[in-house]
Amino acid sequence: MFLKNTWYVAGWSHEVTDQSLFSRTIIGVPVVMWRDAQGKVTALPDRCPHRGAPLSKGRLEEGALRCMYHGMMFNGQGACIHIPGQERIPPGADLPTFPVVERNKWLWIWMGEADKADPSLIPDTYWLDSPDWRYKPDYMRYNVDYLLIADNLLDFSHLPFVHEKTLGGSSDYANMRADVKRLSQGLRIERWHMDAPPAPFVKNLTNWTQNVDRWNMYDFVVPGVLLMDSGSAPAGSGAREGNRQGAVEFRSAQALTPETETSTHYFFSQAHNFALDDPSVTEKLHATLLAGFNEDWDMIHAQFHTLSLDPGFKMMPLNVDNALGNFRALMAKLISTEQTQLSRAA
Amino acid sequence: MFLKNTWYVAGWSHEVTDQSLFSRTIIGVPVVMWRDAQGKVTALPDRCPHRGAPLSKGRLEEGALRCMYHGMMFNGQGACIHIPGQERIPPGADLPTFPVVERNKWLWIWMGEADKADPSLIPDTYWLDSPDWRYKPDYMRYNVDYLLIADNLLDFSHLPFVHEKTLGGSSDYANMRADVKRLSQGLRIERWHMDAPPAPFVKNLTNWTQNVDRWNMYDFVVPGVLLMDSGSAPAGSGAREGNRQGAVEFRSAQALTPETETSTHYFFSQAHNFALDDPSVTEKLHATLLAGFNEDWDMIHAQFHTLSLDPGFKMMPLNVDNALGNFRALMAKLISTEQTQLSRAA
Amino acid sequence: MFLKNTWYVAGWSHEVTDQSLFSRTIIGVPVVMWRDAQGKVTALPDRCPHRGAPLSKGRLEEGALRCMYHGMMFNGQGACIHIPGQERIPPGADLPTFPVVERNKWLWIWMGEADKADPSLIPDTYWLDSPDWRYKPDYMRYNVDYLLIADNLLDFSHLPFVHEKTLGGSSDYANMRADVKRLSQGLRIERWHMDAPPAPFVKNLTNWTQNVDRWNMYDFVVPGVLLMDSGSAPAGSGAREGNRQGAVEFRSAQALTPETETSTHYFFSQAHNFALDDPSVTEKLHATLLAGFNEDWDMIHAQFHTLSLDPGFKMMPLNVDNALGNFRALMAKLISTEQTQLSRAA
Repeated sequence: MFLKNTWYVAGWSHEVTDQSLFSRTIIGVPVVMWRDAQGKVTALPDRCPHRGAPLSKGRLEEGALRCMYHGMMFNGQGACIHIPGQERIPPGADLPTFPVVERNKWLWIWMGEADKADPSLIPDTYWLDSPDWRYKPDYMRYNVDYLLIADNLLDFSHLPFVHEKTLGGSSDYANMRADVKRLSQGLRIERWHMDAPPAPFVKNLTNWTQNVDRWNMYDFVVPGVLLMDSGSAPAGSGAREGNRQGAVEFRSAQALTPETETSTHYFFSQAHNFALDDPSVTEKLHATLLAGFNEDWDMIHAQFHTLSLDPGFKMMPLNVDNALGNFRALMAKLISTEQTQLSRAA
Repeated sequence: MFLKNTWYVAGWSHEVTDQSLFSRTIIGVPVVMWRDAQGKVTALPDRCPHRGAPLSKGRLEEGALRCMYHGMMFNGQGACIHIPGQERIPPGADLPTFPVVERNKWLWIWMGEADKADPSLIPDTYWLDSPDWRYKPDYMRYNVDYLLIADNLLDFSHLPFVHEKTLGGSSDYANMRADVKRLSQGLRIERWHMDAPPAPFVKNLTNWTQNVDRWNMYDFVVPGVLLMDSGSAPAGSGAREGNRQGAVEFRSAQALTPETETSTHYFFSQAHNFALDDPSVTEKLHATLLAGFNEDWDMIHAQFHTLSLDPGFKMMPLNVDNALGNFRALMAKLISTEQTQLSRAA
Repeated sequence: MFLKNTWYVAGWSHEVTDQSLFSRTIIGVPVVMWRDAQGKVTALPDRCPHRGAPLSKGRLEEGALRCMYHGMMFNGQGACIHIPGQERIPPGADLPTFPVVERNKWLWIWMGEADKADPSLIPDTYWLDSPDWRYKPDYMRYNVDYLLIADNLLDFSHLPFVHEKTLGGSSDYANMRADVKRLSQGLRIERWHMDAPPAPFVKNLTNWTQNVDRWNMYDFVVPGVLLMDSGSAPAGSGAREGNRQGAVEFRSAQALTPETETSTHYFFSQAHNFALDDPSVTEKLHATLLAGFNEDWDMIHAQFHTLSLDPGFKMMPLNVDNALGNFRALMAKLISTEQTQLSRAA
């Protein structure tokens, strides 16, 4: 069961072109997307109402989409505009459209009631489309329930264990308590390491030898979007009070979009605001990130397999699970509330 | 649920030899077949009554079939004639046989009540074994419910879309209404294009430049057999009235045999009655057919996957679906009637 | 449903080292094993009580096992001794341990109530760790219910059929009745061929030309352990009365351990007490055994597939099935009794 009235990331802007049809299944619903001559993205169910053939195997004809099984044609508003062999367009031949907003290189899609699709609810990821930041966009697919990945992203205590040799983090990460605040649509997590040696990858990028003040601050919001401000500044330079002069900063944007009950799309990026003229810095940062995310992938799939051996297994909450327990409870409540509303409306 | 009291195509004659045991699962039942010294084909359940081992891993001994797990032996009538380690043949040790009729290079099998297996019910496919016709026999396997393929075979409106670049057909095919008649065991579909340019593949084979009268007439009968008379004749030569002089003619025989609820055997061929001394014509015709059937295979598997994402999806009938809707209704009625009879008999 | 209060073979001694963590699923439960500095093997559930991550992806730290997802640590008694980020060890954080006894190169594990784990119940396999015997230990995995393999091991009547060209055995094997005795925990099966030509593989190893007295005597005991004494002696030398002088003898140890309801671990070996200084004899014996066991693997998987097509299929008991029918009945009774006791205790 998934939340419907929310914005999901459907893809990176560059994945949908005006040259071909793009198909992706989102919360169990196959979706076909394409870009018209003006660049606007349309999203329809990737399933012809006639006999269920995928429209993504179809053909664009002057902005309209023709099913290449029997030739039904739909315009960008989902209206059926041609049926071979008959004049009459019967009721039920039209398709719904899914509202899509393209913002800062992400395509956001609304799978629920279209009239509730308020673009102002979309989280701000300005750095994904700003000359002040550079990053390499990426994607991976998980064959697990998305909540297991959300757990992982809400839990920095796994860093010194899963990522011992990559993203690492001293064992401080596991022992120190992050500051967790509830937001209406998620959680805000903040950690500061004051006056400590720079992390290896920061040292590597900056040649700093002095101590730094280092921070990780992120929001993790419904339905599974992580937005992080992290970085390091010379110790005592006042980063915690807001002075970012002389700091190296990162912005991470990550989004989980359930594909099915047991598979998940994962979009991710890590932007930097320094060395903007040196693409190798972007590459290095991305390679470090990817190495770590592959470790998560391995661990979470192993966990999923182990859980599958005993469907009755109950997880045991620890102190470090405060954030993820909160997020699971929030999602469960939102889904339950929505289901009640939908069944009343029906 | 499948129809039992009907003739299914179990294979091409050449698939079953006297050299080895041949196994094929038909409507969910594993069947082992072999040919005796006189050439007669026997078909038994491919499952030893003892412990369920497949008899097709067994051995022929002077016309009898020995299970190579524990040595039980069955004659061509299914009677158990030897059990190692005991004299007595207990009740229940005999196997039923499935009636098989070999006719015109097809092996027809009856999976239901043997006393109802009337060979006169087998459709006529004389051109599969006639010196006046040549063809190349072929087979492919689908991982879908057989009804999705029956839909496809009853629906010529998909030709200009799925087969745009192969079997093609102008968009006329989709727009023009075929003449559909109900038969007691299926449907008869007839289309005539009078005084039109020859189809590319016909032009290619004949070097004709003049217009032709072109026809497709086929019966599609229970449980999934397509028998087609098609061809082209010089325009005005009277083909529609029955004069086939100067015509190029084709005969197609195609059969769907369910393997399981989600997989299907598909036997097919396209015979021609001209250029009988030129094997390259047979090869070319077959290559064209196969290219088109591979396109169907791709589309129908894609459709099957899309349907699997929403088991509640209801297909929307269009005018062009007249024939296939009729056939589905006929199959449903025959199966339901048979089930009632079988449960009364039980 | 599996028997819990019994000793299962968890592995060969050499599979578990002090260098790494070893994971194997036994009767549906993932188990992690390792060997401490003193050589003692510990077995814990391979599932962290925190969030279900596999502990076998963890790390040994001075004899304790740390989960490498979030760092919980367990000692060799299963006690949780460290949780990053909190002082308090909550109730429920400890793991049970599974009693393990290492004896004669096999690791025996008790998956049931630990206080009932009586090592004196472990069958004697002394020849697996004796200077008087040589063998090559081996393992294969089946994707079938373990009872189908137990059937096979209790049934020598399949030898002339499945193993016609390998382990062979004349058709006598199928026709002659073995002597079967019930034991409290299984069955004892005994066959003697008096004054007969030596088996090909014995001839090959010994160059004997005279007739021999040949025997196979084995116990097959709960939960699936086969212990066999077999061999040949010069005819009339009194082997049947207990004189083994001048005989060539073999001892086979084989164990079935269910992995899941549809997969099984199979540990096996065939020891010999002659030509102890010639490793090629050991290799040849093992190669013969393995060829035969691969034939069983093929047949039993084919049988499993055929059975899966009709879940309602009932096996038909024959005279030769006396032993295996007895064993299935014994297992069913033991499991049912245990379930009753466990539900009373709960």
